[in-house]
Amino acid sequence: MSQTENLSLLGKKTAYRQDYAPEVLEAFENKHQGNDYWVTFDCPEFTSLCPITGQPDFATIRIDYIPDVKMVESKSLKIYLFSFRNHGAFHEDCVNIIMKDLIGLMDPKYIEVTGIFTPRGGISIYPYANYGRPGTRYEKFAEQRLFNHSIPINRP
Amino acid sequence: MSQTENLSLLGKKTAYRQDYAPEVLEAFENKHQGNDYWVTFDCPEFTSLCPITGQPDFATIRIDYIPDVKMVESKSLKIYLFSFRNHGAFHEDCVNIIMKDLIGLMDPKYIEVTGIFTPRGGISIYPYANYGRPGTRYEKFAEQRLFNHSIPINRP
Amino acid sequence: MSQTENLSLLGKKTAYRQDYAPEVLEAFENKHQGNDYWVTFDCPEFTSLCPITGQPDFATIRIDYIPDVKMVESKSLKIYLFSFRNHGAFHEDCVNIIMKDLIGLMDPKYIEVTGIFTPRGGISIYPYANYGRPGTRYEKFAEQRLFNHSIPINRP
Amino acid sequence: MSQTENLSLLGKKTAYRQDYAPEVLEAFENKHQGNDYWVTFDCPEFTSLCPITGQPDFATIRIDYIPDVKMVESKSLKIYLFSFRNHGAFHEDCVNIIMKDLIGLMDPKYIEVTGIFTPRGGISIYPYANYGRPGTRYEKFAEQRLFNHSIPINRP
Amino acid sequence: MSQTENLSLLGKKTAYRQDYAPEVLEAFENKHQGNDYWVTFDCPEFTSLCPITGQPDFATIRIDYIPDVKMVESKSLKIYLFSFRNHGAFHEDCVNIIMKDLIGLMDPKYIEVTGIFTPRGGISIYPYANYGRPGTRYEKFAEQRLFNHSIPINRP
Amino acid sequence: MSQTENLSLLGKKTAYRQDYAPEVLEAFENKHQGNDYWVTFDCPEFTSLCPITGQPDFATIRIDYIPDVKMVESKSLKIYLFSFRNHGAFHEDCVNIIMKDLIGLMDPKYIEVTGIFTPRGGISIYPYANYGRPGTRYEKFAEQRLFNHSIPINRP
Amino acid sequence: MSQTENLSLLGKKTAYRQDYAPEVLEAFENKHQGNDYWVTFDCPEFTSLCPITGQPDFATIRIDYIPDVKMVESKSLKIYLFSFRNHGAFHEDCVNIIMKDLIGLMDPKYIEVTGIFTPRGGISIYPYANYGRPGTRYEKFAEQRLFNHSIPINRP
Amino acid sequence: MSQTENLSLLGKKTAYRQDYAPEVLEAFENKHQGNDYWVTFDCPEFTSLCPITGQPDFATIRIDYIPDVKMVESKSLKIYLFSFRNHGAFHEDCVNIIMKDLIGLMDPKYIEVTGIFTPRGGISIYPYANYGRPGTRYEKFAEQRLFNHSIPINRP
Amino acid sequence: MSQTENLSLLGKKTAYRQDYAPEVLEAFENKHQGNDYWVTFDCPEFTSLCPITGQPDFATIRIDYIPDVKMVESKSLKIYLFSFRNHGAFHEDCVNIIMKDLIGLMDPKYIEVTGIFTPRGGISIYPYANYGRPGTRYEKFAEQRLFNHSIPINRP
Amino acid sequence: MSQTENLSLLGKKTAYRQDYAPEVLEAFENKHQGNDYWVTFDCPEFTSLCPITGQPDFATIRIDYIPDVKMVESKSLKIYLFSFRNHGAFHEDCVNIIMKDLIGLMDPKYIEVTGIFTPRGGISIYPYANYGRPGTRYEKFAEQRLFNHSIPINRP
Ligand SMILES: [Ca+2]
Ligand SMILES: [Ca+2]
Ligand SMILES: [Ca+2]
Ligand SMILES: [Ca+2]
Ligand SMILES: [Ca+2]
Ligand SMILES: [Ca+2]
Ligand SMILES: [Ca+2]
Ligand SMILES: [Ca+2]
Ligand SMILES: [Ca+2]
Ligand SMILES: [Ca+2]
Ligand SMILES: [Ca+2]
Ligand SMILES: [Ca+2]
Ligand SMILES: [Ca+2]
Ligand SMILES: [Ca+2]
Ligand SMILES: [Ca+2]
Ligand SMILES: [Ca+2]
Repeated sequence: MSQTENLSLLGKKTAYRQDYAPEVLEAFENKHQGNDYWVTFDCPEFTSLCPITGQPDFATIRIDYIPDVKMVESKSLKIYLFSFRNHGAFHEDCVNIIMKDLIGLMDPKYIEVTGIFTPRGGISIYPYANYGRPGTRYEKFAEQRLFNHSIPINRP
Repeated sequence: MSQTENLSLLGKKTAYRQDYAPEVLEAFENKHQGNDYWVTFDCPEFTSLCPITGQPDFATIRIDYIPDVKMVESKSLKIYLFSFRNHGAFHEDCVNIIMKDLIGLMDPKYIEVTGIFTPRGGISIYPYANYGRPGTRYEKFAEQRLFNHSIPINRP
Repeated sequence: MSQTENLSLLGKKTAYRQDYAPEVLEAFENKHQGNDYWVTFDCPEFTSLCPITGQPDFATIRIDYIPDVKMVESKSLKIYLFSFRNHGAFHEDCVNIIMKDLIGLMDPKYIEVTGIFTPRGGISIYPYANYGRPGTRYEKFAEQRLFNHSIPINRP
Repeated sequence: MSQTENLSLLGKKTAYRQDYAPEVLEAFENKHQGNDYWVTFDCPEFTSLCPITGQPDFATIRIDYIPDVKMVESKSLKIYLFSFRNHGAFHEDCVNIIMKDLIGLMDPKYIEVTGIFTPRGGISIYPYANYGRPGTRYEKFAEQRLFNHSIPINRP
Repeated sequence: MSQTENLSLLGKKTAYRQDYAPEVLEAFENKHQGNDYWVTFDCPEFTSLCPITGQPDFATIRIDYIPDVKMVESKSLKIYLFSFRNHGAFHEDCVNIIMKDLIGLMDPKYIEVTGIFTPRGGISIYPYANYGRPGTRYEKFAEQRLFNHSIPINRP
Repeated sequence: MSQTENLSLLGKKTAYRQDYAPEVLEAFENKHQGNDYWVTFDCPEFTSLCPITGQPDFATIRIDYIPDVKMVESKSLKIYLFSFRNHGAFHEDCVNIIMKDLIGLMDPKYIEVTGIFTPRGGISIYPYANYGRPGTRYEKFAEQRLFNHSIPINRP
Repeated sequence: MSQTENLSLLGKKTAYRQDYAPEVLEAFENKHQGNDYWVTFDCPEFTSLCPITGQPDFATIRIDYIPDVKMVESKSLKIYLFSFRNHGAFHEDCVNIIMKDLIGLMDPKYIEVTGIFTPRGGISIYPYANYGRPGTRYEKFAEQRLFNHSIPINRP
Repeated sequence: MSQTENLSLLGKKTAYRQDYAPEVLEAFENKHQGNDYWVTFDCPEFTSLCPITGQPDFATIRIDYIPDVKMVESKSLKIYLFSFRNHGAFHEDCVNIIMKDLIGLMDPKYIEVTGIFTPRGGISIYPYANYGRPGTRYEKFAEQRLFNHSIPINRP
Repeated sequence: MSQTENLSLLGKKTAYRQDYAPEVLEAFENKHQGNDYWVTFDCPEFTSLCPITGQPDFATIRIDYIPDVKMVESKSLKIYLFSFRNHGAFHEDCVNIIMKDLIGLMDPKYIEVTGIFTPRGGISIYPYANYGRPGTRYEKFAEQRLFNHSIPINRP
Repeated sequence: MSQTENLSLLGKKTAYRQDYAPEVLEAFENKHQGNDYWVTFDCPEFTSLCPITGQPDFATIRIDYIPDVKMVESKSLKIYLFSFRNHGAFHEDCVNIIMKDLIGLMDPKYIEVTGIFTPRGGISIYPYANYGRPGTRYEKFAEQRLFNHSIPINRP
C-alpha cells in the first residue's frame, strides 16, 4: 500500500454524510515506521444529538495516537466526525465509539480520545478513553496514562 | 438493568429540591465495561450556606471518576448539587459528602472531587478528596494521585 | 444624616434573608457631594430562580452609579442581592428591579445595572438597564450611554 | 397579552426542528416598557451548512436589541437557531435572515446581529447587520452604531 | 448577475498562484442591498517577502467593509492573499495594495484594511488604511474612523 | 525651580511613614510645558484599613493626569500611597482623597483616580473620580470623560 | 474536641492584630479522618515589611496540607496572615515561619507553603517549603514533592 | 527622493550605537500620499537608564503616526531606540524626546508615542504624548485624541 | 573546531532558499560539554505546501534538544525552515524530516520536534517525534518522554 | 557568618556595573538549614549583546535553587544580571555562565537556570541548564529534572 493510493478524498469535492458513517474513514501507510511518534487531532466543531431529547450537543474532540502501519487520513476523519451531526449518542458513547472505530481502521499501537462538551444546565461533561495494543508494552503504557489523566480546572 | 430504564429525569420537567437530597441521585448502566475510562463533570454553579453565619458560599465542583457497572446520570447530579443551595455545610464537608454519596450510588473503581470556592475576606479554599476501591489496584492508584495533587498558583 | 449613623450592618453579624427583601437596603451620606464621581460594584455571586421551572440561575451583577446625597452601603447591598436566592424572577426583571430599588433608595444622579447570566442550553442572556434623573443633564447622559452600550464578543 | 401566556415552550419538552423554522419563534410582553433597555443573547452553538459544498459551518451568534412591546422568548430562540442546523445559507445571509426574522417577530426599537464564524482555509468571516425602527430616533442611532462598529483584532 | 453564477471557485479544486495575482479575485452580488452591513475577514496566514532582503514576512490581515452591489467571494480572497507568498512588498504597501485591489473589484461603500505583522529585531509594524466612497457620507465616515483608529497596547 | 532640585527622595534611603502623610508628596517642574501630555501611574500594591472593622483592604490605584507646571515625583507618590497602610478610610474616600491631595500638590490641568478594590463577601467596589481645572476647557473635558467612564465587565 | 467548639472567631467581630501573632491561630477537629484529603488556601492579600528598608512587600501565599486530627480555622488563618502586616521578615523567612506555625498548630500529615512575591527592581522571589511528618510515608512524600516542585515560567 | 535610495540600513550589517543618536534615523518617501493612513510600531525592547540612580529602565514603546511625505525606516528606528540603552533619561522625557525626534525627521501629519514602563517598587509609569501639525485639521485631531486617551486597567 | 569558525551566516546578508535545502544547516561546537543542558527553539513562522492540493500550511515548529559536541546555528536553522516554504510535504512528514535532518547535522544526545499546524476545515494536526541516541541512556529517556507526551486541550 | 553582615547592598545606593561583574554577587547565611526548600527568582529584565552583531538580546531569566549554607542576596543578583547589559554572550552561554557563577557563590544543593529570549527573525531560543551537587542525591535529582524538563508550547 503506497502512501497516497488510498487518498480518495483529499483534493476532491467532499460528500458530507447525514448519518453515522464509520465506512468513510480512510487510511494511508505510515512513512516513518522506524520510529514511534504521536499524531494529535484537535476537532472543535463536533456536534451530535442527545438520544433522548434530540437536543444538539457540542464538543471539542481530541484524538492522540501512535501509529503502527496505518494512519487515518484527516479529511476522511473530518467527514466521519461530521456524520455524528444528526446521530443520537450520549457523551461517553461518542468518545468510546470514535476510539473503537479508529482502532478498527488503523490498529494503532496506542490511542486516546477526549471529549470536551459544552455545558447543559450549568454542568459540562468531559469523557476520556484510551487503548494500548494488548500483549505489547503499549498496553501497560495505556494503563499508566489512564492513571495520570486529568483536565485542568478553570479558576476565576 | 438496561441503560435507559432508570433515566427518570432526562427529558422530563425537573423538580428542584430545596434541601440536601442525596436520594435524587440516579444511575444507569455503563455500556463500555470492557475498558476503563474517565468521566469528568465540571459544575461551576454550586452554592451552599455557611453553617455558622448563614452566608452563601459559591464554588466550582469538579468530579472525576472511573466507572465500574453504574454511572451517575447527569441531570440527577445537577438536582443533587442544587440541593445544597439552602443547606449548611463547611467547604471541606461539601467535597467529602459529595464524594461519599457518589461512592454509595455508583461503587466506582475510582473517584475524586475538588471544590474551588470563591474568596471570603481575601482567602479562597480548595478542598480535594479521592478514593480507590479497597483491595484493588485503584486503591494504590488513589494514593498516588493524592500524592501528586496540586492546583496551579495564579501569578500576576 | 452623618456618614456612619445608618451603618447598622457593617461590623455586625449578618442576618441573611431567604426572600426578596428590598427593605434591607441601607444608605449613608455622600461625603464628596462637591464633585461628581462613579461608584462601581461587581457582584459575581448573584443567583435567583427561574419563575417557571424553579431552576437556579446565576449571574454577575454589575452596578455603576453617580451618587447625589445618598449612597448604598455595600454590606446591605450584599444582603439585598442574596435575597433573590430563593426568589423567582426572569433575567431582565432582575436587572430592572435591582435598578429601580436602588433608585428608590438613593435617588442617584445616574445609575446602570448589567446582568451577565450563565448559559442555559447554549444561550446566555445579558440584560442592561440605565437611568438619569429626569429633567437634569443626566437624563440626556443616560440616553447617550444606552446608545453606546455594548458587551464585547468572546472570540475563540 | 400577559407575560407568560405565550410561553408555550419554557418548562416543556422541546421539539427540535430539522429545517429552517422561523415559525417556532415566540414572543412575550415587555414588562418594563417605561424605560429603554438592552437584552443581549450569546449563542456560541450555531451551525448551518454551506449551500454549495454542504460542509457544516460554525459560529457564535450575538444578538443585541432594545425591546418595544414584544420580546423573544429565549427557548424559542434556541430552537429557531438550531433549525439552521441542516439548512444551507451563506454566512452573511444567516446574519441578515436572523435579524429580519426577529424584526418580524418583535418589531423592536433597535436590533443588531453579529456572526463570529470559525475559520475555513485560514480565513474567518464575521458579518454584522443592524436596524433602527424607521422614522424614529433609533434609525439615526442604527446609523451611528454601524459607523462605529468594529471587532477587536487578536494579536499574538 | 445572480448570487452564485460567478462562484467559479467555491466547491472546486483550487489552483494556488505563485505570484501576485489580483485577477483571481471574484465577486458576487449582495443579496441584502436594502440595508448597510459589515463583512469582516480575519486572515492570520498572510505571508510575503521583504523586497530588499528576501526574508519572509508574516501578518494577520484584517479586512472590514460595507458592501454596495458587489461582494468579494471568500475563496478567491484566500487565493489572492496567498499570491503575495513569493511577492516582494513592504508592510505598508501590502495593506494599501490589498485595499486598492478590493476597491477595484467591489466598489464598496466603505473599506478598511489592517496588517498585524510579526516582529523583526524586536519591532512590529501594524499599518492601517481606509476608504469611503468619494462624494458620499462614507467619505466623511472614513475620515472619522481614521481619526479614531487605534490598536490596544499589550501590557505585561 | 529646576527639574531635580526637589528630588529629595530618588536615590536615597526611604523613610516609610506609618500614618496618612500627604506632606511627603514632592513635585518637580514639567520640562515639556509646550505640549499637553498624559502621565499614568499604576499602583497595584495599595492597602488601607476599613474604618469600622479594621480589616485591611487592597486595591490597584490608577492615576492619570495632564501636568501643567508641576509633576508628582514617583518615589514620593509611592511613600504617600504606602502611608494609607495603617489608615482607616472607606474605598470611595481613598480615591477622592488621593485625587484632592494630588490637585493640591500639582495644580494639574486634568486628573482622574480609579480604585480597583479586591472583593469582600463576593462584592468588589471600584470608585472613580476626576477633575478638570475650573474655568478652562479641561473642566468640560472632565465632564465628558466622567460621562464616558466605564470599567469592562469580566465574562466567564 | 467537637468540630465547632473552638470556632471562637467565625461569625464574630474580628480583632485584627497589628503585630506578628501566631497565638491567634485556632484549630478544629477533622470530621473526615477516615480518608486522606487536601485542603488548599489561596491568600493573595499577604503583606509584610522588609526588615532592612521598612518597605512593604506583597505576596500571594499558597498553603496546601493533608490534615490529621486538627485543621486550621480559615478566619483565624486570615488574622494570623494579616499580623505580618507591620512585621519585618525576609521573603523566605515568611514562608518558613508560616509553615512552622501551622505545623505547630495542626501537626498535619503533610504541608507545603509557597510565596509569590511582587517584583522589586525587576526581580520577583517565590520561596517554597514543605514538610512530611517524620517517620511516616509522608516524609518520603515530602521529598518527592520537593524534587518535583516548579512554578511555570510566564512567556510573552 | 525615491523610496529605496535612502535605505542605507536595510539588508546591511548594523552598527549599534552606544549613545543617544538621533542622527541615525532615516526616512524614505511615502508611496501612498494620496490617502491618509496609519503606521504603528510596537517596540517592547526599549531600555534606558535612570539619570539619578543609573538603574536600567525597561518599556514597551508604541509609536502611531499618519505620514505625509516622509516615513521613518524601521531598521533605523530600531537603532535609534537602542541608542537610549546607556543614556540617562526620565520616563516622560523618553516619550517626549522620541516624539520630537520623529517629528523632526518626518514632519508627519499626526504622531503619538506611548511608553509602558515596567514597575519600580510596585508602581508603573505610562507617559503618552501626541502632536498634530499646527494650522491643519490634525491639530484639532490631536486635541481630541489626547482627550480620549486612556490605557485599560488590569483587573485580577 | 572553534565555536565561531563555522558561523558563516550570523552577521551577514542572508540568501533565502526557495526549495527544501537541508544543506544550509550549519553547526558550531558546544562550549559547555561538561554538563547536559537543553536548547529549545520556538519557530511560529513555519509554512509549507500541501503536496496534493498545493495549499499553504502554517505551523509553529518547536525543537527541543540536548547537545553533544555540535549545536545548530540559529540563523541557519531559520533559513532551513524557510526552505519548506515552497516545498510539498504532509504535516507528519515535516516533523519527522526536520528531526532527522537535525540528527544528521548535530548527532545530539536527545531531540524532539513538535508541529502545531493551523486548522483546515475545523481540524488541527499536531505531530510530535523524538529520538535518543541508540545504546545510551538517552534512548530510554526518549521512550519515557514519548510515553508522557501530551498537548493541553483548549477549553472554552 | 550572620544573616545580615554581608548585606552590603540592601538599603544603600546601588552602583550599577557597566561590564560583566560576577564579583558583585553577595551571599548571606541560610536561616532554615534544617529543611530543604526552594528559592525561585524571576528576572524579566535581562539584556545582553550578541557577540557577533552587537545587537541587544532580551530575556526573562528564571533561577530555581535549593540552598545549603549560603544564599544569594537579591539586590546583588540584580546588579550581577544588569552587568550583562553591555557584555557580549550567546544565549546558551548566558544561561550556563549564570548557573556556574551562582554555584561558585553559594555551593547550593541544586540549581537550575532558564532563559526565555525574545524572538529574532521569527525564532526564539530558550536554554535550560541544571546542576545537583556531585556525590549527593541531588546529582540524581538533577538528572531526573533534566529528563523531565519542558516548556509549554503556545497555541493560537
Ligand atoms: Ca468551534
Ligand atoms: Ca454555567
Ligand atoms: Ca480578595
Ligand atoms: Ca464568584
Ligand atoms: Ca449551556
Ligand atoms: Ca458552546
Ligand atoms: Ca488558520
Ligand atoms: Ca521581540
Ligand atoms: Ca496584588
Ligand atoms: Ca468573593
Ligand atoms: Ca519590575
Ligand atoms: Ca509590584
Ligand atoms: Ca507568527
Ligand atoms: Ca476551522
Ligand atoms: Ca520586559
Ligand atoms: Ca517573530
